[in-house]
Order: sequence, then structure tokens, then C-alpha cells
Amino acid sequence: MRFDHDTLPQRVRFASGAAAENLAAEVAALGARRVMVIAATTEQELAHRITDGLPVVHRHDDVVMHVPVEMAERARAEAAAHGTDVLVSIGGGSTTGLAKAVALTTGLPIVAVPTTYAGSEATPVWGLTQDSRKTTGTDPRVLPRAVVYDASLTLTLPAGLSAASGLNALAHCVDSMWAPRTDPINQALAAEGVRALRTGLPLVVKEPDGLQGREQALYGAYLAAVAFASAGSGLHHKICHVLGGMFDLPHAQTHAVVLPHVLAFNGPQAPEAERRLAAAFDAPTANEGLARLRAHLNAPRSLRELGMPEEGVAAAAEAVVAAAPAGNPRAVTLETISGLLQAAWEGTEPR
Amino acid sequence: MRFDHDTLPQRVRFASGAAAENLAAEVAALGARRVMVIAATTEQELAHRITDGLPVVHRHDDVVMHVPVEMAERARAEAAAHGTDVLVSIGGGSTTGLAKAVALTTGLPIVAVPTTYAGSEATPVWGLTQDSRKTTGTDPRVLPRAVVYDASLTLTLPAGLSAASGLNALAHCVDSMWAPRTDPINQALAAEGVRALRTGLPLVVKEPDGLQGREQALYGAYLAAVAFASAGSGLHHKICHVLGGMFDLPHAQTHAVVLPHVLAFNGPQAPEAERRLAAAFDAPTANEGLARLRAHLNAPRSLRELGMPEEGVAAAAEAVVAAAPAGNPRAVTLETISGLLQAAWEGTEPR
Repeated sequence: MRFDHDTLPQRVRFASGAAAENLAAEVAALGARRVMVIAATTEQELAHRITDGLPVVHRHDDVVMHVPVEMAERARAEAAAHGTDVLVSIGGGSTTGLAKAVALTTGLPIVAVPTTYAGSEATPVWGLTQDSRKTTGTDPRVLPRAVVYDASLTLTLPAGLSAASGLNALAHCVDSMWAPRTDPINQALAAEGVRALRTGLPLVVKEPDGLQGREQALYGAYLAAVAFASAGSGLHHKICHVLGGMFDLPHAQTHAVVLPHVLAFNGPQAPEAERRLAAAFDAPTANEGLARLRAHLNAPRSLRELGMPEEGVAAAAEAVVAAAPAGNPRAVTLETISGLLQAAWEGTEPR
Repeated sequence: MRFDHDTLPQRVRFASGAAAENLAAEVAALGARRVMVIAATTEQELAHRITDGLPVVHRHDDVVMHVPVEMAERARAEAAAHGTDVLVSIGGGSTTGLAKAVALTTGLPIVAVPTTYAGSEATPVWGLTQDSRKTTGTDPRVLPRAVVYDASLTLTLPAGLSAASGLNALAHCVDSMWAPRTDPINQALAAEGVRALRTGLPLVVKEPDGLQGREQALYGAYLAAVAFASAGSGLHHKICHVLGGMFDLPHAQTHAVVLPHVLAFNGPQAPEAERRLAAAFDAPTANEGLARLRAHLNAPRSLRELGMPEEGVAAAAEAVVAAAPAGNPRAVTLETISGLLQAAWEGTEPR
């Protein structure tokens, strides 16, 4: 056993229906007098509802995906113009990402209120896009000081999107098991994330208006992000990154298709990860646990149905081999990765 | 699901045989130029060995149990006199405790190198004793910035003492399951601690010179401390505190005797804790898992054999009921606690 692990400071308040109250407490704890609220246009109503009574000096609603640099600069200028002392972000990954972009240059503390399972609120990772190139980095200043989780805010996320977003979080957990900086602590948190997600997601699909499944899924997504930020990107995320870039495939669906194939690929060479995952899935094997969950969620099965051309497999395999992370439990070769990608393209059930 | 959870910042470096190298890296990361090393007389040789090459300005070896205030004041005066900028503590709970007492008033950062399973290095809890009264408190300033774990430093801890210290850590894990501030995160970390301790401790007893068991036990003790510091004292620790104070019983052995009785008492009313513990013990029930482990470790069975008088049961039950923590899964009454203590006194196998 040999590892280095950085535990990052963050306060989590988790309570359904208590977002307004918990947000007020955290903003007060930071001594805030001039709050800038960041929330997309579509979430302004929700944002107003839970920020009523806060000392808000400005509301920013200009939120788009991947945080374009010019959007970040506008938000930074507004924060400065209004003498902001605390940022409150309410929304999914793009909203949290914009708040992080402001924190990155200003050092302003963030209180995050997530409304999806993106998980950005629990990581020190920021991203900015310029000329359609995304730059990412890690900085302790962008890690929100506090996160207010309220599962009732996710009730408007449709069941199908919830399942896709949840499978994305599940992929964070699974890939954390063999990512470059993995360690037993990350693995334990990731396993707990799997347990929560496999319990919660089927319930969300079965009873979209119920809170129980959404609480488990939200909690699981938080753990997924903590584990993944600490462990780094493993083989699964490298593959999805390559496929997304080459064929413009839908993000969450690509994860859902590829994950079982990576698990079947690495699992036999990673007995400790396999043991932990099987236990977390409460299934005889990790593969079987994941297969059961995917069946419940009606997840897509093949890259073919997502629109990837079959002749893309060879080029993708080359790019994956070039980008493969160090220390993957099983050797990453052109032959093995072509086999994996071909199976994912066809949608065969992984052994 | 409803909880507040504070994750505290700390860097952990875990590698057998690498204490000197990892300690040097952490001391350098803090920009230290004037280090004060705190280590008991009995651990001076070990301390010299791993601090060779550090910019040490003073070595303090006046370490006694429970951190008497006058000892703390002497250490603080020495830290000031030598212009110390970083404290390095090398040893068990008393040594870490003394470093914390200095950090409490000076704000000096601590790098801790633990040599037992006490776990103090992973908590923001300090304790000071004056006129045989112990005062404890929590302060983020006393949490070591970094912990350097090196299982080879624990090889000199005899197998019997290791088992007792390890069962003490196990009690932290079990009690975290229903302590006043418990939450799913604490429970997951505590369950991982149980898994590591039940794997490691039998190996330590079987092969005292092997590193594998000692690594697992040390890792488990770290998690136990993290979970316990966050969750607070549950019924088990209240009982042991009462018994220790009234009858001057040996600390670790009292924990070993009482724990299975508290587990049998609370388990049936705490199905989630029971499920997590049974899985972590890899046993059909948590009770059975703990019984197996105790048999392996030859743990003491009764308060009688530890020297507690039978007529003390009634008075102890009264004191426990008065001190019982809020939210214990099963109602704490004079009758139920008398039954628990009588069984622990006799050493009957808990149902």
C-alpha cells in the first residue's frame, strides 16, 4: 500500500427542501454582504425562490456550455463592478463552471447549489474554452467552500436525463478504481458512490416525483466527483474523450455505452476494484451489477446507434492507445482496444 | 437523507520505509526553516533516524500521557524560544497531543508521523489535563497539515499492544455508525476502516514482523479517526468513559470487552449500520464478524477479568444513562443498560 492523498476542505449541507435555509446559513457564515447569484435563464425562477432574503447585489444569467473565455470575462467584470464578496451558483455543471472561472481570477468564495449530477461543485477543476479549444486546470481557489444539496431542486430534471447524468456519475466512480492517482480512499468513496447511484437511479426512473431515489443519486454524484477529482481520468474517460472529439457523439450516452466494455476489459486484471464494485452493486460480479442497472435505466447499447461510423473504430483505437493513462491494470494495445471499441460499436454484451 | 458534513483539509502520505523522504518533502512544502521535533525519550532514536537532514532547531522529548498543562506550556515556551516555524511530532497519541497543544496557542503547522493506531493525527481534537481534569476541544489549527504514515515504524509495537490499539480503532469505526453527528460519508469511511482493521489485525498477530497487516491496520486506524472525529462519541465511548473514570480500568481492554455488547444492543435497531458493518466484516452479521475477529486477537471477554467489581454495575448504569448521547438507535434506559453492563461484566457472548 503506497499512496499520497489530498483531502480538500469543503462543507456539505444535504437536506431536501432546505436549500433556502441552508444557503442563507452558508452565505452568512462567509460574512457575505454583496452576493452575486449565477444561474441560467431557465433556472432564474428557482434561483429567486431560494435566494430571497440574501444580500444580492447582482444576478448573472448569461450561462452557456464549456465556459467560453469572453463569457467568463464578462462575469468577472460584473463581479468587480458590483463589489461582490461571495458567489452563489445555482444550476448544473456549466453554471458551477462559470462561478469557478470568476473565482479563479478573483479568489471570491463560492457557495454552490447543484441541480444536476454533474459533480463540478465537489472538485477544484476549472475549464475555459477559447476558439473551440478547452483548457482545464486545478486550483484550490475554485473549489466551492460549501455545497447546498437539495434533491427537491432536481425534481424537474426528466427521468431520462437523470438516468444519463447518473450513469455519467457512475462512470466517474468506476474509472476512479484504476485511474492514475487512485488510492484506497478514492476507491472507498467511489464504491459508496456506486452503491448510492445503483440504489437511486432505478428509483428515479420508477418514481420521477419521489425524493428518495433523487437523494441517493445526488449523494452518489457528489461522491463520484470527489473520488474522480482525486484519482484522475482513467481509461474509460480517455476513450470517451477520444470518441466525443472525433465523432461528436452525445456525452452521457457515450459514457453509458462504453462503460461496461471498459469494466469487462479491466476488471479481470483489477481484482480489488472488481471485488469492491461487485459488493457496491450487490451483485455476483461488477459486470453483472452494471448490466442489471443499465437494463433498469434503458441505457443505449451501441456506438452504432449513437451515430458513430464503423470505419471510425481503427482511427479511434490509435488515438486511445496514444492517450492511454499510465498504470491501467490491463495492457492497452491497438489490438485489445480495437476489440473493445468494435464490441462497443456493435453493442454486444461484454463478457 | 439529511446531514451536514465538514471535510477537513489534510495531506496523507502513506508508504512503508519512506518516512524520512516523505517527511522531508512535507516539511519543505511548508517552507520550514526552524523545525521543532517532538518525540518521547523512547522514540528518540527512531526520530533521529527519520529527521536527519531536516532544519531542526530543537528536539523536545518531555512527553507524558494526557498532556498536562504545565508540560504544554513548557513546550510552547521552547517553541517560541527557538523561533520554531514547523512542529514535527513522531509517536503515539500523547506525542501528537503535545504538538497539538503547542499549535493551539501558536498556530504553528504540524507534520505528524504516527507510530501507533491512536488516530489523533487525523482529527482537530485537542486535550489538556489540569489538576487531573481533562479538558478537550476542537480547533482547525491543531489538525496536522500532513500525516506521514510508515508502517515499518510500527514494527516495534508488540503484537498484543497492536491488537489492543487496533480494537480501540475498530471501536471508533463501529461507534461512528450511530454517533450524534453521523452521516453516510462517516459511515462509508468507518466501514472501510472496519474492512482494513479486520484484514490487518489478525495478520499483525500472526506475523508481527510482516508489513502487510500493519499497513492495513494503520490505514484502518486513520479512517477510524477521520470518521469518529466527524461523527462524535456514540454510546460505546460514553460507556467506556464512565467505566474508565469510575473503576480505573485499562483503556483499550475496556473497549475490547464492551464493544460487542454495544453492537448487539444497537445493531437490531440500526439496520443500515448493521448492513454496512456485516459487509465490512465479510460476515453474515456484524456480531459474528466482530466475534471472529476478537477470537483471532485473543481479546479479553469480561469486565470482571479487568478488575471491575460486580456491585459497580448499578452505579455505572446510572452514570451511562445520564451521559447517553442523543439519537442512539435504541432507547437507553436504566434497565437496558444494566443488562448490557451485567453481560459485559460476566463476559457472556452477546446474542
